[in-house]
Amino acid sequence: MNQTITALRALERALYAYHYAQNVIDYDSETVAPAGSAAGRAEAMEVLSKAEFDLLVNPDTAALLAAARMAAETEQEAAEVRELQRRYDEIHRIPAEEYAAFTRLVQQSIPVWVQAKRSSDFSLFAPYLEQIVEARRSQARYFDPNRDPYEVWLDRYERGLTIAACDEFFATLRGTIVPLLAEIGRRGAPVRTDFLDQDWPLEGQRAVSARIMEIWGLDPDHCALGESEHPFTTEFWRGDVRITTHYMPRDVFSNLYSVAHEAGHALYELNIDPALDYTAVTGGSTMGLHESQSRLFENYVGRSRAFVSYLDPILREIFPGKLDGVSTEELYRAVNRAEPSLIRTEADELTYALHIMVRYELEKALLQGTLAVKDLPAAWNAKYREYLGIEVPDDAHGVLQDIHWAMGDMGYFPSYALGSAYGAQAMADLSKTLDFDTLFAAGNLAPLRDALRSRLWQYGCLKEPQDLVRSLCGGNFDPHYYTDYLTKKYTELYKL
Amino acid sequence: MNQTITALRALERALYAYHYAQNVIDYDSETVAPAGSAAGRAEAMEVLSKAEFDLLVNPDTAALLAAARMAAETEQEAAEVRELQRRYDEIHRIPAEEYAAFTRLVQQSIPVWVQAKRSSDFSLFAPYLEQIVEARRSQARYFDPNRDPYEVWLDRYERGLTIAACDEFFATLRGTIVPLLAEIGRRGAPVRTDFLDQDWPLEGQRAVSARIMEIWGLDPDHCALGESEHPFTTEFWRGDVRITTHYMPRDVFSNLYSVAHEAGHALYELNIDPALDYTAVTGGSTMGLHESQSRLFENYVGRSRAFVSYLDPILREIFPGKLDGVSTEELYRAVNRAEPSLIRTEADELTYALHIMVRYELEKALLQGTLAVKDLPAAWNAKYREYLGIEVPDDAHGVLQDIHWAMGDMGYFPSYALGSAYGAQAMADLSKTLDFDTLFAAGNLAPLRDALRSRLWQYGCLKEPQDLVRSLCGGNFDPHYYTDYLTKKYTELYKL
Repeated sequence: MNQTITALRALERALYAYHYAQNVIDYDSETVAPAGSAAGRAEAMEVLSKAEFDLLVNPDTAALLAAARMAAETEQEAAEVRELQRRYDEIHRIPAEEYAAFTRLVQQSIPVWVQAKRSSDFSLFAPYLEQIVEARRSQARYFDPNRDPYEVWLDRYERGLTIAACDEFFATLRGTIVPLLAEIGRRGAPVRTDFLDQDWPLEGQRAVSARIMEIWGLDPDHCALGESEHPFTTEFWRGDVRITTHYMPRDVFSNLYSVAHEAGHALYELNIDPALDYTAVTGGSTMGLHESQSRLFENYVGRSRAFVSYLDPILREIFPGKLDGVSTEELYRAVNRAEPSLIRTEADELTYALHIMVRYELEKALLQGTLAVKDLPAAWNAKYREYLGIEVPDDAHGVLQDIHWAMGDMGYFPSYALGSAYGAQAMADLSKTLDFDTLFAAGNLAPLRDALRSRLWQYGCLKEPQDLVRSLCGGNFDPHYYTDYLTKKYTELYKL
Repeated sequence: MNQTITALRALERALYAYHYAQNVIDYDSETVAPAGSAAGRAEAMEVLSKAEFDLLVNPDTAALLAAARMAAETEQEAAEVRELQRRYDEIHRIPAEEYAAFTRLVQQSIPVWVQAKRSSDFSLFAPYLEQIVEARRSQARYFDPNRDPYEVWLDRYERGLTIAACDEFFATLRGTIVPLLAEIGRRGAPVRTDFLDQDWPLEGQRAVSARIMEIWGLDPDHCALGESEHPFTTEFWRGDVRITTHYMPRDVFSNLYSVAHEAGHALYELNIDPALDYTAVTGGSTMGLHESQSRLFENYVGRSRAFVSYLDPILREIFPGKLDGVSTEELYRAVNRAEPSLIRTEADELTYALHIMVRYELEKALLQGTLAVKDLPAAWNAKYREYLGIEVPDDAHGVLQDIHWAMGDMGYFPSYALGSAYGAQAMADLSKTLDFDTLFAAGNLAPLRDALRSRLWQYGCLKEPQDLVRSLCGGNFDPHYYTDYLTKKYTELYKL
């Protein structure tokens, strides 16, 4: 390896260390940190974030990247230069103080959001959200002063995504979901749900988490489960990935499918080629690709009829008596029931995209300046009434339910719906050679893991996102695989 | 505030951030990190440790310190300069690569030690300990090439401590403890212990931990409890202190007194003057002073007859039936029984100093080069035979029991015994104005906390250690308060 690439690797390793430190600190803050610990964390994070920024954004790095572009010999080296250059280009226009202040703002806003959600008091959180929106608008101008600020952020999370494409994507989904939901409401066969809301002891729920992680194939030596307000996945490095869940005493399936979802994210991170460790091209690619894996494992595996038949005796063993008199088909229908609900993370597959659509429209309006933060709760509630036909009783079950905006993520939500669509297409393509019904009914996910490792996971950010989407899907992206899947599944499930 | 002091504060705040990050990462690694996570952690820690080193050791910092010494106006500013200068002087001679490599070595050695302890296989750990000993010897030469390398480390942990003073201190303790222990063996009234070894359900043990933390006065918003192989305390900042415990199914008192001990450390850190936050003078002073607080709360509070009388009904409530037929006096005598044992952290007050003496002599010999690592287990076992009269069955219960050497701490152990002696003198002095028997019997530790906050805690490192020892003890240090205390307590307890 030549000297330039050696220097580049040293920079990547240093950047890795700051990424590692900040992820550990974030994870700690979301899982075990005491409530009054935020002030000192914000102080530290501001310094670390500034140091990371200074490592990347300086004339030496600019010169190193220019030299490395010429010196790169392998595909990986070229990709490392490409990814670092992209990060450099993206942030070198943000003044360092502004970047550090934003990190600090986010550190402060998260515990406030937790408090606001607990007390269902949006007014606590509003001043922080106002600053976050303003900061994101201001930052978007640094990236591209002539572009719609919301589109700037869409494009950062899902490279190449435009508002026009997003509008069209959601219109396609709406064209399928709204009539299907109406049809279900009119003449769908009723779904039995009485057995869902009962006392599911915590000890059993923990056993369920462990079983899902085991079936999913997560190595406990490299993946640990924590508890947090809102489930999430974070990777410290390829060999240390953390997922979290949130236990609800009267809802075992919330935890089960949260673990199933986060474990999908974790599998992706854990299966990246070790040759990419500590470089700029390790880690999963876009948010949409990441969500494609989490939602694939949550829904296309976890909620499949075949897998539910495998899960059924496991649940009966862990919770003796709790499912007496409930058939496997009733269990399958219950965990797949489609009904308008308040909470995104507990939404069914069919209405899920409507939850995303609400957030998409609202965050777009916030960043475009057509909606004020103070009017957000009313706007939220109006959209839930319009799209889902339900009344939001309080902000804890409404606008305060998700952590994303408190973390500064605006423009991320559409990726969830895109991820579902990528996943549906990948499963359709893979089902040509893999008999998922037989495999899932036996709890055997190894062939699926092998296929996904081969098509997507191994690459990290070595290849461009659009190439990874094609590799995963087995062809150009087409959202109709997703709408076809939903139509087929729900027509059959509700006997329409 | 003038510009120089502003620049100094910025440096202190940056150093704080690295300290924070490394402490969070350490805490994570000891509590919840998966077993296979060490490689990436070591990579990151090496970078962070090097960055922290570079912040402190460079010509700009040297010049800033020189200017700040002249510019300092307040006691705090002068103390900040003094502490930073001391750190600078201590490490500016260690080559940066050597400093970073040592951090990396320690990161690698800790999980190996965990594994070695689990499998009771010293040979796994030996190559790491050899490197640690060699590194500490080499580092000592950078500090002072003409001084005994062990004394260099003694002095770092407990400023001003010499091998001669330490030898004399342990000789004094030995002169009291050995005959007292012999007397107990000859004619001590037997202590009933049959009720100690029984099944103490984990749920109850967790309740005990919470009660101790509550009685000790730890604010749960600023102090959280975790679980680790070996209990410890770490402070992220003054408003976020973490303690850990280790639950043993058949020994509730191990957990109880571990929490009591670590909570003493935590109280010290949590009660430092907030004006010192993020500066070089926040944080507790020497290890001896820190141990004085932990052992004070563990023993002089937690094992006092008065407090045990308060604890008694609490334990009976948490563990119904477990203490039936056991009197309060029997409980008091059981948690204070003196008998030679294998494990330092579970040793009684009387034999504790003998455990420390073994470690003192062995680590001194290792650093002085008169004992090879390969001969350490045999030497350990021989000293336990000589001082404590017991046979060590395996290395897990012998030389592998403590994490300190794996963490690179050599020269730390004597502080435990010094801390006990400081604490005994402080309690003797405070008992002139505080009626501890009445207070502890009512579970009221507030007046003690107020006194310790006033004498010690508030100062952090604002004052020099020797001044803090005097302030805490109410006069010049005199180890006879400790030996008098032990003699009185054990003569009475064993009816000698």
